[in-house]
Amino acid sequence: VRFKKITIIGVGLIGGSIGLAIKKRRLAKEVVGVFRRPSTLKRALKAKAIDKGTLDIKEGVKGANLIILAGPVSAIPALAKAAIRYAKPDAVITDVGSTKAWIVKKIETYASGRPIHFVGSHPMAGSEQTGVEFAASELLKDAPCIVTRTGRTARRAIKTVIDFWRDLGAKVTVMSPSDHDRSVALISHLPHIVAFSLAGAVPAKFLRYGAEGFKDTTRVASSDPNLWAGIFTTNKREVARSGRLFERHLRKLLNAVSKGDNRKVAAILSGAKAKRDKFTYGN
Amino acid sequence: VRFKKITIIGVGLIGGSIGLAIKKRRLAKEVVGVFRRPSTLKRALKAKAIDKGTLDIKEGVKGANLIILAGPVSAIPALAKAAIRYAKPDAVITDVGSTKAWIVKKIETYASGRPIHFVGSHPMAGSEQTGVEFAASELLKDAPCIVTRTGRTARRAIKTVIDFWRDLGAKVTVMSPSDHDRSVALISHLPHIVAFSLAGAVPAKFLRYGAEGFKDTTRVASSDPNLWAGIFTTNKREVARSGRLFERHLRKLLNAVSKGDNRKVAAILSGAKAKRDKFTYGN
Repeated sequence: VRFKKITIIGVGLIGGSIGLAIKKRRLAKEVVGVFRRPSTLKRALKAKAIDKGTLDIKEGVKGANLIILAGPVSAIPALAKAAIRYAKPDAVITDVGSTKAWIVKKIETYASGRPIHFVGSHPMAGSEQTGVEFAASELLKDAPCIVTRTGRTARRAIKTVIDFWRDLGAKVTVMSPSDHDRSVALISHLPHIVAFSLAGAVPAKFLRYGAEGFKDTTRVASSDPNLWAGIFTTNKREVARSGRLFERHLRKLLNAVSKGDNRKVAAILSGAKAKRDKFTYGN
Repeated sequence: VRFKKITIIGVGLIGGSIGLAIKKRRLAKEVVGVFRRPSTLKRALKAKAIDKGTLDIKEGVKGANLIILAGPVSAIPALAKAAIRYAKPDAVITDVGSTKAWIVKKIETYASGRPIHFVGSHPMAGSEQTGVEFAASELLKDAPCIVTRTGRTARRAIKTVIDFWRDLGAKVTVMSPSDHDRSVALISHLPHIVAFSLAGAVPAKFLRYGAEGFKDTTRVASSDPNLWAGIFTTNKREVARSGRLFERHLRKLLNAVSKGDNRKVAAILSGAKAKRDKFTYGN
């Protein structure tokens, strides 16, 4: 048992999976969840993702050694503010938000000049589904997890956070918040932008002819719109930049198709396939 | 037993699945495969997708009641020409090509003025995988299947083809070759264009941070480049048109993101999600 008490604020798919994983691996004596609504508290207890739940953030973080902020991106700075206020002075705080520069910058303004015990994290697991019912103790196993470091990150805090994610089976990489935002804009936010745009573009009357191709390519367009609007807009510069890169590649392929240039089309597709075939996540 | 002999020319993933389905449902006394290479013939026999195989198209189609052209799109007109030449006069011929206007027009020029026994088909099943090893007798079950009709389509031939696909469990819709090409450009070719472009755009060094989102959105970018180059260029007008529609939707979303207009972004994503949630294929 590494921690006496771990508190998870926001126990949905990710927060719930973290809770299940902590309990399965016996990393904490007690896992406490903090909720906004009694109904989600009840669902998390039923899923056995936490040992105890509360609607009171003060009570929830009291005495915790590790606090995990697992609400939507746009809510994380405010959750951090409250957590910092009520936490033990040596408590380590991390989050699971999909953008980092915006979150980390906001949170670092809450601590005045001293090294702080907040460390940004982004475990890259999940699906288009939401809710603690879809939580799974092995969701983070082998998942990439980016942990961010700034000039103000306390050494003990980042070590605690890295070890924690590794204990859950994730593959940790450390980088700056802005490097995180650029990497993730390309590999995660852009695929979501593309999937939402594709589902938006295809007229509904053609859906009946859709099969595996449309299904997979648009799967993440079923994700929570408010959650993803928050992710895109808190990382807008990098998302916009990734979008322009994608537009150039798309235009090049469409031009070759329009010209009927079979050889050039095949060359573009071969390059894309070679890269995709190297991607082995979850296979 | 509906047919004495069914011949499949090209026995890969789709052709092989058709063979397995025919045999499982006992729709033919004999299923014969026609091959270009002895190695693929051997693999198809091993997979039990056919009863008998030959490298000689003349021998293969001799006496067949139904002939299915299951090679790549660009090869189908030439296969049809040979099949028409050697087939019984009343044999019905169909194909499984992903574009139809180009194929059907070419084939109709081979018959001079009379109604012809060729009927274009497009069973929409398959995956990024190729080869008879991935064939499955239920691949076509519940799959959409478009059958095309023109002014020259013989009534008996189209009835035979529709009944055949229905016997295999597919959901048949009849339309003109050009309506097919427009529908499929949107619901199938466009997702492939987008997936290939996305895999092409993301620099390889970021692949290690990819998870489920990138994985699903780009899955079909692992498809056969030559096969898909042939599909795109034989349907270039409709693919280009679908591409432009997609580009407009993408630009609108990226503009809203760049402006940080959270409400507008959420509205666009909600519209896309609502449409995607209606899509129920294979769920």
